[in-house]
Amino acid sequence: MLDAIFAPRAVAVIGASPDPARLGHRVLRNIIDHGYAGRILPIHPRATTILGLASYPTVSAAPGPVDLAVVVVPAHAVLDVVDDCGRAGVTGLVVISAGFKEVGGAGRMLEQQLLERVRQYGMRMIGPNCLGIIDTTTRLNASFAALMPAAGEIAFMSQSGALCTAILDWSAERGIGFSRFVSLGNKADIDEVALLRSWGADPTNRVILAYLEGIADGPAFIAAARDVTRHTPVIAIKSGTTAAGTRAISSHTGALAGSERAYEAAFDQSGVLRARSMQELFDVALAFAYQPQIGGDRIAIVTNAGGPGIIATDAIERSGMRLAEFGAATLAQLRAGLPATASCSNPVDVIGDARADRYEVALSAVLADPGVDAALVLFTPQAGSEPERTAEVIARLAADHGKPVLTSYMGGVSIGPALAILNHRRIPNYAFPEQAVAALRAMVHQYIWRTRPAGERISFSVDRERVRAVFARARAAGRVELGEIEARDVLAAYGMALPRSELAQSPGQAAALAEQIGFPVVMKISSPDILHKSDIGGVRLGIADAAAAHDAYEVIDYRARTYSRDASIWGVLVQEQVRRGREVLVGVSRDSQFGPLIGVGLGGIYVEVLQDVAFRLAPLTRQDVREQIRSIRTYPLLRGVRGEPPADLAALEDIVLRVAQLVEEFPEIVEMDINPLMLYPDGEGAMVVDARIILQG
Amino acid sequence: MLDAIFAPRAVAVIGASPDPARLGHRVLRNIIDHGYAGRILPIHPRATTILGLASYPTVSAAPGPVDLAVVVVPAHAVLDVVDDCGRAGVTGLVVISAGFKEVGGAGRMLEQQLLERVRQYGMRMIGPNCLGIIDTTTRLNASFAALMPAAGEIAFMSQSGALCTAILDWSAERGIGFSRFVSLGNKADIDEVALLRSWGADPTNRVILAYLEGIADGPAFIAAARDVTRHTPVIAIKSGTTAAGTRAISSHTGALAGSERAYEAAFDQSGVLRARSMQELFDVALAFAYQPQIGGDRIAIVTNAGGPGIIATDAIERSGMRLAEFGAATLAQLRAGLPATASCSNPVDVIGDARADRYEVALSAVLADPGVDAALVLFTPQAGSEPERTAEVIARLAADHGKPVLTSYMGGVSIGPALAILNHRRIPNYAFPEQAVAALRAMVHQYIWRTRPAGERISFSVDRERVRAVFARARAAGRVELGEIEARDVLAAYGMALPRSELAQSPGQAAALAEQIGFPVVMKISSPDILHKSDIGGVRLGIADAAAAHDAYEVIDYRARTYSRDASIWGVLVQEQVRRGREVLVGVSRDSQFGPLIGVGLGGIYVEVLQDVAFRLAPLTRQDVREQIRSIRTYPLLRGVRGEPPADLAALEDIVLRVAQLVEEFPEIVEMDINPLMLYPDGEGAMVVDARIILQG
Repeated sequence: MLDAIFAPRAVAVIGASPDPARLGHRVLRNIIDHGYAGRILPIHPRATTILGLASYPTVSAAPGPVDLAVVVVPAHAVLDVVDDCGRAGVTGLVVISAGFKEVGGAGRMLEQQLLERVRQYGMRMIGPNCLGIIDTTTRLNASFAALMPAAGEIAFMSQSGALCTAILDWSAERGIGFSRFVSLGNKADIDEVALLRSWGADPTNRVILAYLEGIADGPAFIAAARDVTRHTPVIAIKSGTTAAGTRAISSHTGALAGSERAYEAAFDQSGVLRARSMQELFDVALAFAYQPQIGGDRIAIVTNAGGPGIIATDAIERSGMRLAEFGAATLAQLRAGLPATASCSNPVDVIGDARADRYEVALSAVLADPGVDAALVLFTPQAGSEPERTAEVIARLAADHGKPVLTSYMGGVSIGPALAILNHRRIPNYAFPEQAVAALRAMVHQYIWRTRPAGERISFSVDRERVRAVFARARAAGRVELGEIEARDVLAAYGMALPRSELAQSPGQAAALAEQIGFPVVMKISSPDILHKSDIGGVRLGIADAAAAHDAYEVIDYRARTYSRDASIWGVLVQEQVRRGREVLVGVSRDSQFGPLIGVGLGGIYVEVLQDVAFRLAPLTRQDVREQIRSIRTYPLLRGVRGEPPADLAALEDIVLRVAQLVEEFPEIVEMDINPLMLYPDGEGAMVVDARIILQG
Repeated sequence: MLDAIFAPRAVAVIGASPDPARLGHRVLRNIIDHGYAGRILPIHPRATTILGLASYPTVSAAPGPVDLAVVVVPAHAVLDVVDDCGRAGVTGLVVISAGFKEVGGAGRMLEQQLLERVRQYGMRMIGPNCLGIIDTTTRLNASFAALMPAAGEIAFMSQSGALCTAILDWSAERGIGFSRFVSLGNKADIDEVALLRSWGADPTNRVILAYLEGIADGPAFIAAARDVTRHTPVIAIKSGTTAAGTRAISSHTGALAGSERAYEAAFDQSGVLRARSMQELFDVALAFAYQPQIGGDRIAIVTNAGGPGIIATDAIERSGMRLAEFGAATLAQLRAGLPATASCSNPVDVIGDARADRYEVALSAVLADPGVDAALVLFTPQAGSEPERTAEVIARLAADHGKPVLTSYMGGVSIGPALAILNHRRIPNYAFPEQAVAALRAMVHQYIWRTRPAGERISFSVDRERVRAVFARARAAGRVELGEIEARDVLAAYGMALPRSELAQSPGQAAALAEQIGFPVVMKISSPDILHKSDIGGVRLGIADAAAAHDAYEVIDYRARTYSRDASIWGVLVQEQVRRGREVLVGVSRDSQFGPLIGVGLGGIYVEVLQDVAFRLAPLTRQDVREQIRSIRTYPLLRGVRGEPPADLAALEDIVLRVAQLVEEFPEIVEMDINPLMLYPDGEGAMVVDARIILQG
């Protein structure tokens, strides 16, 4: 995939220049200098040779076949160039030229035209407005970067070109290698999704890093990332806050949702690890690039000093992993091989005067223990220490045992050569233990994701026709917010339990309906124009007999007409008064990038004050919903505290899944709240007491 | 202070050795080699000269005066050495020798004897079991460390010797200097408190760092840190979890408290910044060491690349600081001096091709803006960039304007010389913007602490005699947990409001007392042997008339006698039934290191499920309590949500302060809970409904 770009048989540099000050010169030189083995064709209107290579006025005039064209001409010339490339059978483009969408106005139109040409010729394109691309496996450096990175296992894509140059500069000093290195530019054609799919299919890329300022197609990103992260870790930095939508938000869920929550849910549900800083991005990347994947969370520590051992232990416990407990054989081996003053339990302290041999005894014993999933080796330079030999020992044992081994050599001037050995032998090293622990934590997170049951999509049998009819009626009446009766209809059509409810249009009818439903009943004004029913006294609870129902109708009707002379009054709803349960909110807010974002939380003050709502993006499996419910902070209240019975979680899962299906099947729903849902003890189900549904305006 | 140790007129090295393999040799060599200007006296039983210096058999035989003795002899010889030092008038000791408390048993006793000698002679001592001390202002390196750090503004103390060697090694590579560098060892005499006080008094130390595994005297630490942090920032890493106390915990507060909460509160209340990692410790230290203190939280960013600017903006907003808004003059200046494509609002983007002059225009404009408290300059190496000249410009402008300026030069191979300039010119630089933002955040935290009103201690007029009598009676009866009547008595003596309550000893008396108090009443079993009254049905609520009170007495009395034949029954409490308010928990748990830890939170499930309790250590000012209450996550519930009136926060503050006074004046109280406290709307006070008090066993 994308071979025309990353592994072309021949590359044309359009805008190649004999003038060393021009970008086109620099790009050509990079391709020539770094060992690309295919044919290289400078394209220049007049020159016959550039940098010793035969130059041609156009690609179509150059000897074919040419797979890739790197374009470094002014924006206004790009369309013609693409046409020529099309004629010449070029299928890959890297457009470095700027002056497109990023400058707005005419540039935006030009980019649209460019994309149309690209599609028309069946090409794929990186850019425009980018630094270029580097592939160390084909040794193609089609960029104007000042450096060629070492070959490595890390694939990196960035929406910021400046970050690319900084990272290349930074990694050159540290000897960190890359497999592919791409500046995404404006992402007109190839974006993070295309690269994820392509890179995920090539095991050369042991880990994929992305710096993203936005994701264009949320669902496609999630689908691609889900596939890739099953085998290859993906770590992302997402920066930049999306401007809040201009649509007024009218639901609880809408107010709590927002783009940040959507990105969090997207990364969470697709197994993408989110780095909180650039430092962490590379700390974690190195562990995945250099070491085998982890098989659990039981960590062994080997150290030559107590203090750093404590620091590492604290960090491991804080991050929710476990210190491994050694088996009897391991302990015996440690006791036999280490001095009496050494500490043989975890963390193993080989004591300050340890030479490489003592590290060998300790590390080989703990790595052989089946109760150990990974080892963290700490080293502080002390009198008699052997930093380099110890590094060799660590590298050898790590290779022998096939479990992840990370190190934290703490120091500077006296450990330089040892750090070079560790890096060369692919042992990720960290200046301080906390960074190593953060990397281990990411490995464990990836392990949990990899081994998590996939979950199955559930499709309930529902009455879509009925929903369509409700929406059509509301729209015909020019409304985007459904009335309670309509919302009830929609939820009932999707199989949710609702209290019995009938519309009365006179006091006498109200009394009769109340008799039928059974006392006590609740009565509420029914009007498409009155959304905040309580505010006008339009709700009466605990109506105990027919006479009271008769009176209630009159009072409610009177208030509604007084409140708003123009309101269209449908009547008064007479409703079964539901028994109390645990009040839960289930809501949906549609994110512009990721689609329906579904929130679940305990209702009332838990939502209002604690904002304790867990979000997931549709589509959802039952497994997803289960995790979602368990991630609510007040989840213990659902499980039952103070001797309360547990709530009917299966019923709650069911409702969340039905809501997810509803909003997937009806994209015109932009927001909805079920609030409250009364959730009863296990086995007793749940009932929707009130709901709001808002359609696309 | 501590001049005998850090600025002695002469130093004796006891255990100095001509053998280069011995520690005593290395210590002597370090003192000689690194420029210490005082007299140096090797002490050796037989040698006449060591390393060219005249050697003496004992300190008393050497020419005086000698202020400091560095002791590097076997543990068993240390006491005699100290006696000799005492005779010779030595007042400072650095005991490097190991074999004391850290080996347990006899070593612990030896350390006790050592300390007694030290006290007896009026000496001060670092160690035993340490690496030694380094003072770069006197150029005294009295340690066996392999390196001498550069002179600098950072004072560092560490409870781990290995960490000292690692940090020295690490900082040597980075050119980071220290003023003092101390390995604390076993802290038998001089501990973190003594060093804090001493170092805080010397402005050479612009920032004090501490790696601590424990704090011996909590209140003394808080007092010292409070004084020092008013002018000099103190940053600590506290690692290691203290073994949980063996005392069974019987209160809510006790269960939620614990050593970690106490340390958190201690650092919080004394203005100590807590670093979450070694990396952060030094990142933050560098900012304080090199730059002036900050005067607010409005940060300006100047960058030559969009991506890093977004990363920094995100980090600033996440950490609760503000992006500065520029004044009109600043904007005009930026627009006049920067190219049209530059971004002149914050973050200022001087664009990729910026040379030093453009950074100068931008940085001088934003630093001159009175709405800017500090600047963060981001630099990525690009074609035409001038990393070194830009560094010079930044350093000059920072010095001119007197506001903190931090940089993040992102890169490696091409920015080495620029980093050296920045470090030399005292501009703290960070590999990635997030680290710089963390350092700024710490500076702002220190600013808030520095400018926070100090708060005053309040002493309520209370009835201590009454409390003493209650405690004496309980102890006489062999009880450490007070009965409800007793706890009521104690709280009433400290001026807290309680419901009217009388003890009935017959059904008839119960009925009569209930009439007096006024219906409805609550009735509860009163027995020192029955602590969980509800569990045996020993509590009845809502008793509405005299007949019901009569019956309730009989039922409660019957149940209590059936439940426990041996229980001593005092009778049945007849109590005013208090009206409902917001239920609050106020509790105390006594921490072994820090004393009374006072918790406040909303009662019921908020405590049980959310563990939403804010802790502070006594003594407390009203300012402390105010902050404590506001730091409860569910604080909005106290302020009032959904149209509820705000709670009487002044009454709550009052009760917390009275509780703090109580547990300070009666150290025998080890745990107490007021749960619930009914807190009424503003102006209506609060009432203690139930309370438990547990005395030292």
